[in-house]
Amino acid sequence: MSDLLRTRIATTNPMLAVFSDRAAIAHALAFEAALAAAQAAEGLISAGTAREIARACATIEIDPAALADEAALAGTLAIPLVKRLRAELSGDAASAVHKGATSQDLADTVLLLQTMEGTKLLAADLERIQAGLSVLAQNYAATPAIGRTLLQDALPVGFGLRLAQAAAGMEAAARRLQDDATGNAKIQFGGAAGTRAGLEGKGGAIARRMAKELGLAHSAPWHARRGGIAAIAAALAITIGTLGKLARDVSLLAQNAVGEAREPRIAGRGGSSAMPHKRNPTGCQVALSAALRAPGLVASILSGLPAEEERGLGGWQAEGPVLAELFLLAAGSAAAMAEVAEGLEVDEAAITRNLQLASIGDDIGESAAIVSELLADFRKG
Amino acid sequence: MSDLLRTRIATTNPMLAVFSDRAAIAHALAFEAALAAAQAAEGLISAGTAREIARACATIEIDPAALADEAALAGTLAIPLVKRLRAELSGDAASAVHKGATSQDLADTVLLLQTMEGTKLLAADLERIQAGLSVLAQNYAATPAIGRTLLQDALPVGFGLRLAQAAAGMEAAARRLQDDATGNAKIQFGGAAGTRAGLEGKGGAIARRMAKELGLAHSAPWHARRGGIAAIAAALAITIGTLGKLARDVSLLAQNAVGEAREPRIAGRGGSSAMPHKRNPTGCQVALSAALRAPGLVASILSGLPAEEERGLGGWQAEGPVLAELFLLAAGSAAAMAEVAEGLEVDEAAITRNLQLASIGDDIGESAAIVSELLADFRKG
Amino acid sequence: MSDLLRTRIATTNPMLAVFSDRAAIAHALAFEAALAAAQAAEGLISAGTAREIARACATIEIDPAALADEAALAGTLAIPLVKRLRAELSGDAASAVHKGATSQDLADTVLLLQTMEGTKLLAADLERIQAGLSVLAQNYAATPAIGRTLLQDALPVGFGLRLAQAAAGMEAAARRLQDDATGNAKIQFGGAAGTRAGLEGKGGAIARRMAKELGLAHSAPWHARRGGIAAIAAALAITIGTLGKLARDVSLLAQNAVGEAREPRIAGRGGSSAMPHKRNPTGCQVALSAALRAPGLVASILSGLPAEEERGLGGWQAEGPVLAELFLLAAGSAAAMAEVAEGLEVDEAAITRNLQLASIGDDIGESAAIVSELLADFRKG
Amino acid sequence: MSDLLRTRIATTNPMLAVFSDRAAIAHALAFEAALAAAQAAEGLISAGTAREIARACATIEIDPAALADEAALAGTLAIPLVKRLRAELSGDAASAVHKGATSQDLADTVLLLQTMEGTKLLAADLERIQAGLSVLAQNYAATPAIGRTLLQDALPVGFGLRLAQAAAGMEAAARRLQDDATGNAKIQFGGAAGTRAGLEGKGGAIARRMAKELGLAHSAPWHARRGGIAAIAAALAITIGTLGKLARDVSLLAQNAVGEAREPRIAGRGGSSAMPHKRNPTGCQVALSAALRAPGLVASILSGLPAEEERGLGGWQAEGPVLAELFLLAAGSAAAMAEVAEGLEVDEAAITRNLQLASIGDDIGESAAIVSELLADFRKG
Repeated sequence: MSDLLRTRIATTNPMLAVFSDRAAIAHALAFEAALAAAQAAEGLISAGTAREIARACATIEIDPAALADEAALAGTLAIPLVKRLRAELSGDAASAVHKGATSQDLADTVLLLQTMEGTKLLAADLERIQAGLSVLAQNYAATPAIGRTLLQDALPVGFGLRLAQAAAGMEAAARRLQDDATGNAKIQFGGAAGTRAGLEGKGGAIARRMAKELGLAHSAPWHARRGGIAAIAAALAITIGTLGKLARDVSLLAQNAVGEAREPRIAGRGGSSAMPHKRNPTGCQVALSAALRAPGLVASILSGLPAEEERGLGGWQAEGPVLAELFLLAAGSAAAMAEVAEGLEVDEAAITRNLQLASIGDDIGESAAIVSELLADFRKG
Repeated sequence: MSDLLRTRIATTNPMLAVFSDRAAIAHALAFEAALAAAQAAEGLISAGTAREIARACATIEIDPAALADEAALAGTLAIPLVKRLRAELSGDAASAVHKGATSQDLADTVLLLQTMEGTKLLAADLERIQAGLSVLAQNYAATPAIGRTLLQDALPVGFGLRLAQAAAGMEAAARRLQDDATGNAKIQFGGAAGTRAGLEGKGGAIARRMAKELGLAHSAPWHARRGGIAAIAAALAITIGTLGKLARDVSLLAQNAVGEAREPRIAGRGGSSAMPHKRNPTGCQVALSAALRAPGLVASILSGLPAEEERGLGGWQAEGPVLAELFLLAAGSAAAMAEVAEGLEVDEAAITRNLQLASIGDDIGESAAIVSELLADFRKG
Repeated sequence: MSDLLRTRIATTNPMLAVFSDRAAIAHALAFEAALAAAQAAEGLISAGTAREIARACATIEIDPAALADEAALAGTLAIPLVKRLRAELSGDAASAVHKGATSQDLADTVLLLQTMEGTKLLAADLERIQAGLSVLAQNYAATPAIGRTLLQDALPVGFGLRLAQAAAGMEAAARRLQDDATGNAKIQFGGAAGTRAGLEGKGGAIARRMAKELGLAHSAPWHARRGGIAAIAAALAITIGTLGKLARDVSLLAQNAVGEAREPRIAGRGGSSAMPHKRNPTGCQVALSAALRAPGLVASILSGLPAEEERGLGGWQAEGPVLAELFLLAAGSAAAMAEVAEGLEVDEAAITRNLQLASIGDDIGESAAIVSELLADFRKG
Repeated sequence: MSDLLRTRIATTNPMLAVFSDRAAIAHALAFEAALAAAQAAEGLISAGTAREIARACATIEIDPAALADEAALAGTLAIPLVKRLRAELSGDAASAVHKGATSQDLADTVLLLQTMEGTKLLAADLERIQAGLSVLAQNYAATPAIGRTLLQDALPVGFGLRLAQAAAGMEAAARRLQDDATGNAKIQFGGAAGTRAGLEGKGGAIARRMAKELGLAHSAPWHARRGGIAAIAAALAITIGTLGKLARDVSLLAQNAVGEAREPRIAGRGGSSAMPHKRNPTGCQVALSAALRAPGLVASILSGLPAEEERGLGGWQAEGPVLAELFLLAAGSAAAMAEVAEGLEVDEAAITRNLQLASIGDDIGESAAIVSELLADFRKG
């Protein structure tokens, strides 16, 4: 029941892998193993029991489709997963699995682990874009070009100024995403009602150990405080919108009547099923399509903030798939625009021609100084 | 690279099948076969050529993952699909494939065929809900219960009145969806720029034949007029919101302190990984989660309406996956609430107890008459 | 505390008047007078009492700012309004005011009366646009122009074909809006819990009389079924998006490097504070800005559908201001684009030049036939 | 043409004042005066000319309604404002007004000045909420209450834990808003195409002086980089959603069947036009209504990020009114919930009764420790 034709066109295979069933199951099993290890370290279960659980987590084979059907029936992934783990075990180990934890503890931790991996993947492409744009911005900082406002010729600008602005926007977006993702990459461990009950007062210590094991920060339970997730979602959408800004500009510059810049030529990219000679701005298409889809997804996550008491009904369950969608769109957009930024074809003759047609001279004001200012800010981080 | 854990929890397997790669490829091949048949009927290609194309469409085997990778590179599904079809053929047949069509013709037609199937699937569950609620509404039309406004006890209502209102809301939503889906199930066939060029003036006739073959209405090309798609999206979201309204009420009535109604007991449903005794309103959870996600998806489709000239860059490409998501959410919600509506457990003792605690008598006004009025409207359609 | 600088730029004074405090108060008083008259006709109060109430409704003077402060405190307009009305009256008349009604009955009825007026205002401008575009579409049906897809030159089209498509889109949008507004212009009268209690069984009859008096259709109470309002909101957003599509195209055609069409020259319109010679596509700006804002507003209304029991907490209260905002944006956009459609300046020389630069001939396929097909559909309605 | 009935119910008079025409005009005049002063300091105009401009800015009287009509025609506030200023002056001063600036420089600077004032207003109410909740959280940290997940009784929690979570959520939201507002409170000064042209190379120095004078940070022009505005919008929506979370919980606890907490009794607040005895959670209504409206507004701002080249057509023009709307909603919500948090009525008997009905003991786990942890985090800021 694959749906790659619907999803793959907007994203990359590596990001699909980060949010795949396989990855989700692996993270979930890592959560259960870390929980058992922490409980053993705190003396709630024996070291042997923890080892048995770890072994089961390492060796269990799970059919994602069957698990998904059961999760859909149960309303949560944890129930069928834990049931399967218990079936692999017996005695103390069977009853110790998932002890003190609740479905949301597992789901939130899995989501944060995916968030960290997704953010790292994205950072690489965003850096490629910043680097590519910075070089171009410097090269063309003092090249007079017509600036356009409200889609009309305005006054001259340094052609590189527009690119430096794009680089600066990208840098700010990447930094915000990094800060929000890192700052909210926290263990969620509170148990059924968020009190860490049934753990002999060792709940906080167990959470601390689990966080360390899983590479997350420690935190008091945050199951019903979802502002951090919303901030990550917003940072992703701002990144996607910033990529969309670059795509908008490149696609406008690439219009036949303008011709100042175009996406690089890539085999198999940008063709037309009806016009073989045509060269479509396909990278920009991917980025602009993502920029149309992201705002509504953020709205969905924001809508879920007023969750009911200790665990909302409907709201937090919506976050996982929507946040995943935002990461997928961001990845597709960033990968597409990385190729565009690195290979952008600039046509200086067209730039000069269009400027001359505007008949307003070539005073680019302080363009070059502003380029320096923007790139310097950027380097300071 | 399956992602069922992320998607399946919110939807049903039959709707996943409607929007699966397998179905999309089948519809795409049906489009190409219908196009060839219509061109043969209009004398643009020979009957033999059309038969060869039909045979290739019937027998070609396509790996969805590989096709998706190529579509992602090309920026459109049609290019790699047509390339594969041509590789199965030779001579006239190879060059006749996809003649006069463009990628969007194929994509839009596939989307509409999926829309029709999706709408039909949904209609069945929506009818189950209306039927279930109607019976309950009649049974409890005159049962005094406390009405609640702004989450506070207000005045008595017939318990069935709330359910009749839900049934009426569902009926209106189902009718709107049916009308918008049927009214917009139109062939898209305009070629590269929407002029039906290169078809010897037979483009309109070919479109008519294709529409008939594919079970769609004829239409002038509508490639850059997307109001119909937006209307379908809005109708889906209104349906999802209406299902959410029912879920909201059932979940409020099922609170332990209220206890007037609950979801039916279904094996494997509504458990808790931490509290085995708990009975969660999981059907309502699915519906409420969908109701949180749908509005943002509609916003995305509406945002794409101002498309650029003959084919927008980014906008219409966003519609397919977003409309699919709306159908998936609607299906999950409708299936969940169909079980709830058919099996709703009503506790008359709790209803009476809560009413008495409010100490405002039991005058339910014209509740019974309004129930009749609502259900009669409903029957008239 | 006026905020016209923030609102007026996006809308028209006539639509501001439809949703002004003055209009809202007038409609609210009309509701109370119609209620009293209907109760007198059904024998619940005396004719003299109804006349006293009608007189008070006709003569009372209300300071909107003070009323708004009290409404904000109370959480509803009806409470301070009814209090003021009662202070104008005495005895039976004072106690008969608002009898059997609840705040939402008044608020919903006011909203629907504004909706009807707003829809009528809009229809006039939408018709101007359709008429203007139809004439242009016919004039330029066979004028070869370069068609553009994905912002790249594609194949030739009849220049009028794009305009005929715009006209057809506008017609469909206007018709949908008319249908949804008219189809949902229903009296809301159900009292505190939607049962028409306290009216001696005459509630239905009273509602019927009120509907007739106010120019609305009769309906069972629909206080917690908000699908109709959502449908009106969606129809408005589709209209706004369709206007945005026209604005997108005109602004692209008006680029200096393209120059095929421009907004008409209007004194005081489209200037620049920095470049006096510049001619900005300000009408398109208004329409595109509206098209960016409308989708999120629809999402807000859709999000409120899962309202709690007999009257939601937060949801329906959000509808009034958001629906008003949609009408305001639609009015601003339609008025701006009506001027654009009626006065569009087409530059045939530029059209020819751009087509020749594309070097792909001038075969416009069935453009002229499609124009006829679109405009004929349009005339059939 | 006031519209207070539509807006005031959701906000406060002080925030309406921040975004009033009067305030906008005052900020705009401050911008022009600061620009003239900076140009004089840099030797571009004489000190006398700058003084004349300053005097005109201090004394000019402007009718907001007339200005708004002209701004609507022109498509920008700056054009009619500058025209009026010039009419007050003559000679050098008349021509020096607005020199080197463009409409967006003025509009963005006005918006940021309003943002700073709005943020400050909000901070005060958010602090009241945090303080109120902290006291309650400590008082009830160890009071056993039933915890509820998915709207069903789950396990016991300390009643204060839920409030401590709310306080922590509020603190994080307030901090994010403060950071994003402060971090983006930057002067916008770039002139027609963002190059600071026509200023004899002194544009950067002038911008620096203006920033200092107006209380903003210096910045390179950011006219087409809107990520900062989007971040402020998202931070406002997260704040609104966090307030909505508190409102959701209070309204659920205030249900008659639950009765664990209620809004304080305030004269004129929470009545019903049909049921004088009823006490509605009106503060929660305001907050929940805001929480429904905010997500769509953020989506609108995010949708505008892919702006066209040096100044977008439609996108940035949409930001001002939408950001204002977010501030207005946040203010209404924060003010309402400040009263709720400060005066929350807690019913310990009801808490105990509900817990006993659940029959699951009173083990609240580490609730008290988590309360301390949350409040300590909070104090560290």
